[in-house]
Amino acid sequence: MERKEDKLGEFELIELLTGEIKNSDSSILRDFGDDTAFVRYGKEILLLTVDTLVEGVHFLRRYPPSAVGWKLVSVNVSDIASKGGKPLWGLITLALSPRVEIEYLRELYRGINSALKHYGFSLVGGNTTKGDKLCLDLSLIGVARRVVYRDTPKVGDKIYVSGTLGDSKAGLELLLENRKSYTHWEQRLIEKHLKPKARLDLAQAVEKFANASMDISDGFLADLRKMVKNYSAVVYTDKLPLSEELEIFCQHRGCNPLLYALEGGEDYQLLVCSDKELTPYGFSLVGEITAEGKGEIYTPDGRKLEAKGFDHLKS
Amino acid sequence: MERKEDKLGEFELIELLTGEIKNSDSSILRDFGDDTAFVRYGKEILLLTVDTLVEGVHFLRRYPPSAVGWKLVSVNVSDIASKGGKPLWGLITLALSPRVEIEYLRELYRGINSALKHYGFSLVGGNTTKGDKLCLDLSLIGVARRVVYRDTPKVGDKIYVSGTLGDSKAGLELLLENRKSYTHWEQRLIEKHLKPKARLDLAQAVEKFANASMDISDGFLADLRKMVKNYSAVVYTDKLPLSEELEIFCQHRGCNPLLYALEGGEDYQLLVCSDKELTPYGFSLVGEITAEGKGEIYTPDGRKLEAKGFDHLKS
Repeated sequence: MERKEDKLGEFELIELLTGEIKNSDSSILRDFGDDTAFVRYGKEILLLTVDTLVEGVHFLRRYPPSAVGWKLVSVNVSDIASKGGKPLWGLITLALSPRVEIEYLRELYRGINSALKHYGFSLVGGNTTKGDKLCLDLSLIGVARRVVYRDTPKVGDKIYVSGTLGDSKAGLELLLENRKSYTHWEQRLIEKHLKPKARLDLAQAVEKFANASMDISDGFLADLRKMVKNYSAVVYTDKLPLSEELEIFCQHRGCNPLLYALEGGEDYQLLVCSDKELTPYGFSLVGEITAEGKGEIYTPDGRKLEAKGFDHLKS
Repeated sequence: MERKEDKLGEFELIELLTGEIKNSDSSILRDFGDDTAFVRYGKEILLLTVDTLVEGVHFLRRYPPSAVGWKLVSVNVSDIASKGGKPLWGLITLALSPRVEIEYLRELYRGINSALKHYGFSLVGGNTTKGDKLCLDLSLIGVARRVVYRDTPKVGDKIYVSGTLGDSKAGLELLLENRKSYTHWEQRLIEKHLKPKARLDLAQAVEKFANASMDISDGFLADLRKMVKNYSAVVYTDKLPLSEELEIFCQHRGCNPLLYALEGGEDYQLLVCSDKELTPYGFSLVGEITAEGKGEIYTPDGRKLEAKGFDHLKS
């Protein structure tokens, strides 16, 4: 046994393991490999997804517990939103280290509840168990009127993103400095990392107009590469939406905001391909599907963009 | 903050936390507190449940990984079976410690797959993340034609259990001795702990005839107390079904098999209240709902039986 799990990336590992799983159930339209699974149920399509936050990997104990609860719900809703769906019911698992204070758990649940209220759905069940570190797992069931996969753009489609990119990465870096005080603009970047808002407000536009859609969790370039794996695309790098806060952050540090936008993870914005005009819905036009291909992504002046992003298991 | 989580039991904790959750969604027939949640979807009822196995809490690293995979699926299916339902789709989360060997994971997935095949449903999605200890979480969606709650028996109902009780506890004790060899009957007890079979074969009988039903995971008495919380019941302690293996085990050790049957956890047999005759379906008649009450459970000669069972967080 020469190879260990930590030498594999998350995607190779999932591929390895799900390679063992053979689904023959005709209700299953798509299982692994998209933001959610798609199953047919009567006339509708159910969306099934699960996401996990692990202490020390996805959050630190010193983060505000209500933000951790908010984020747990939001990252799951983001998957449903990216499919143009509506969240219906959630199941939660809480693995608790014996050192967790009741007050911490109460705050955590306050964050969960405020997110449930914000996104308009309910937790219907759950499970509590002992664990070494705090581990939060949320399964979410949603519904959609049609299937919107992540990797089915059409040649000629425009590529759109919602919101601004790279803020979460900058916020994380600030957060890890663990300073006693932060300026207002720094706090706004930190908030983007701690309490991302799933773009459920854009789900209807996705349902109506998207040929392909996914949420940006691993980073714009890494995620775009999954989307265009059978295509070539051009990205208008000068059009990537950047926040004022990220620009200031990079001015102060002499870094390039574009790198944050291209490679920063956990923005939970939507990445959408469509042949319709989506800027009126608040999306930014950032590229185009130019041809069939093998996932090549170019700048407007013809340079190749390499996707890195980050992969939780490798990082 | 005086109180810590580990001073609370699992049920108090869930109650505390879910007390914060207010569901107003009319599709939700029952949320927390039963083997599964029940939600109405069109003309049918969906059953939603989640269960978790944590290394060091629910299993040890030295257990055969295929058995761990089998058990993960079985404990979830057991919840669906106890509601008279049929499992449809599962979502899996795997939190991996960096020390896990690929071969271990392959074996784990072989166990998962053989259980999926046995019970006849599919995994449709999942999530992999880094963790300190191996932690497996399965969410399962099933369907039922009617609601069968755990705590709605009727006065006069007979109390039934499937299979035999107490084997899993004896098997666990043998397993923890970590001996180099075991006799055949010892191996059969160990198998009951490592690879429990969910009683999906009895789900149809539950759907047709049960007034109340649940699976036995915390122990017969502890679980019966939840079932009869608004009733009084008598248990025919001399009728509790015991395996030959458990009888031999207790002869060798001078212990009382009845205590194993009453208090042993993780049997994953079904506990059913019905006004019909269920012995032809392979159930044993073990008691009766005698009156409304407050969860009093008596022996036929009028002694009170105290429920202990075990509670994962307290144990």
